[in-house]
Amino acid sequence: MTTLVFGHKAPDTDSTGSPIIWAWYLNQIKGVEAKPVLLGEPNTEALFMLDHWKLNKPEIIADVADDQPCVIVDTNNPAELPANINGADVRAIIDHHKLVGGLETKGPIDIRIEPLACTATIMWKMIGDDLAQAPKAIKGAMLTCILSDTLEFRSPTTTQEDKAIAYALAEDLGVDIAEYAAAMFAAKSDVSAFSDAELLRMDSKEYAVAGTKFRVSVLETTAPDVVLDRKASIMETMTSVAAEDGVDQVLLFVVDILNEQATMLIPNDLTKSVAEKSFGATVEGDAVVLPGIMSRKKQIIPNLAV
Amino acid sequence: MTTLVFGHKAPDTDSTGSPIIWAWYLNQIKGVEAKPVLLGEPNTEALFMLDHWKLNKPEIIADVADDQPCVIVDTNNPAELPANINGADVRAIIDHHKLVGGLETKGPIDIRIEPLACTATIMWKMIGDDLAQAPKAIKGAMLTCILSDTLEFRSPTTTQEDKAIAYALAEDLGVDIAEYAAAMFAAKSDVSAFSDAELLRMDSKEYAVAGTKFRVSVLETTAPDVVLDRKASIMETMTSVAAEDGVDQVLLFVVDILNEQATMLIPNDLTKSVAEKSFGATVEGDAVVLPGIMSRKKQIIPNLAV
Repeated sequence: MTTLVFGHKAPDTDSTGSPIIWAWYLNQIKGVEAKPVLLGEPNTEALFMLDHWKLNKPEIIADVADDQPCVIVDTNNPAELPANINGADVRAIIDHHKLVGGLETKGPIDIRIEPLACTATIMWKMIGDDLAQAPKAIKGAMLTCILSDTLEFRSPTTTQEDKAIAYALAEDLGVDIAEYAAAMFAAKSDVSAFSDAELLRMDSKEYAVAGTKFRVSVLETTAPDVVLDRKASIMETMTSVAAEDGVDQVLLFVVDILNEQATMLIPNDLTKSVAEKSFGATVEGDAVVLPGIMSRKKQIIPNLAV
Repeated sequence: MTTLVFGHKAPDTDSTGSPIIWAWYLNQIKGVEAKPVLLGEPNTEALFMLDHWKLNKPEIIADVADDQPCVIVDTNNPAELPANINGADVRAIIDHHKLVGGLETKGPIDIRIEPLACTATIMWKMIGDDLAQAPKAIKGAMLTCILSDTLEFRSPTTTQEDKAIAYALAEDLGVDIAEYAAAMFAAKSDVSAFSDAELLRMDSKEYAVAGTKFRVSVLETTAPDVVLDRKASIMETMTSVAAEDGVDQVLLFVVDILNEQATMLIPNDLTKSVAEKSFGATVEGDAVVLPGIMSRKKQIIPNLAV
């Protein structure tokens, strides 16, 4: 049976590109029949990557069947995976997030988690010399994933390994990193077609702090005003999205990639308190700028307080 | 702060040797101050390894303090770890068991789990060429762990990698595998000093099947009669051990390493039913021989039925 390779729901660039990279490796190098799939519609930056490198857009699946062989990449969180994931035959996990607990496997399997910025960086290390056999598109996907997850090395999640591997790939491919990253971020910033609710769910993870459930949403952009001009209606929509998704509050951080800061929306007293207690911010009005804040994983989640 | 490296409670050879190997690697190669510790008294085979290779017996600790840096080896199951494990600062996990779910980490960490017979085999791969700098005792501990977990390559958990690495280590050390393994297994079989309750808890894991909680105990030995001669009193003790440990039934499998079979004790109708439904055995009397059964992980747990 064909092994399905997938990342998390709401696929960003790494969760779209890494399944494609790993399925190539399984098919071409390991002789294992494999197919990349998606658990949702990829974001605009991921679509740019597919278009630029002429990669086929993977099929979107709704769930996995019992005993379906699969490889999970870029997450280990059952909440971000198909409902029947613990019924499937998970063969491997490759990830760079904290161990959440909750995912169980039927037997011992290959699990590789490293504290790097990007899943594709770990894959580069695992594939090793066999990468010489990869087509340009696979190396291009790797480079795109690393530049995306590191925000072109600006994010504090960036490690020396992510950076060195991205430089090596760019050199090999003849890609100008600054120019290519600018095109990627322009694609990611092009969110005018999305509804407020779609924006709030685009890059979003649920976290509970002291009994309060949050949906922590991040929008990384080089054009923050495109989002911030809509902030009144986005804040209104937060209430219905929270109710529909069963959380107490949606938090939205608009990350300005070029100026290396985030703007957090402040629709009510709860979000005001979160901004003050988590980031020591002084809040006036319905938005607050948080200088230097770029990473949910490294800076937002570890500091979140109510 | 010194990083503590430990395996599971009730340390066998792999859970005693692997922390010593990894602490050596962290101290000598990675420049990280580390110390191997134990979560309980090691078994007689592990003590033989320490004695044979003149390794110090690691200190036994009761729990870990908040934010204590630590590396977990040979398990990912919180039930087999210190009570405060989720309060500690877990830096890495190296294991060869199925993902149980329940262990959480504060941030992304290094996790390496592979479906090999032995943790030390994974460490051999991770250490790579740096192993040339290891003293004989560290290589000796590696070899002992692999021969122990594979039962000298007889266990169905054995992979080609475990075997090849053990042969390479034995060649390097000038060890005769057959002779050395016989001495190891003689040490493991010397269980006359242990009480019935100690025997039942020596190498034991808890598993629930269809709502019934079992303590699944295994004794690997080259002298099964030493244990089976005591079976009447061991079966009596099963009741009190089950009550004290909050399980419904203790199952004991006496694995005859040389004859590659297990004898399961049958004190009552529940254990009789388990033997019949799990292994298709025909049970008469208070014990049943299960030909070919040697591995809890590969053969007993996956088939357990009530």
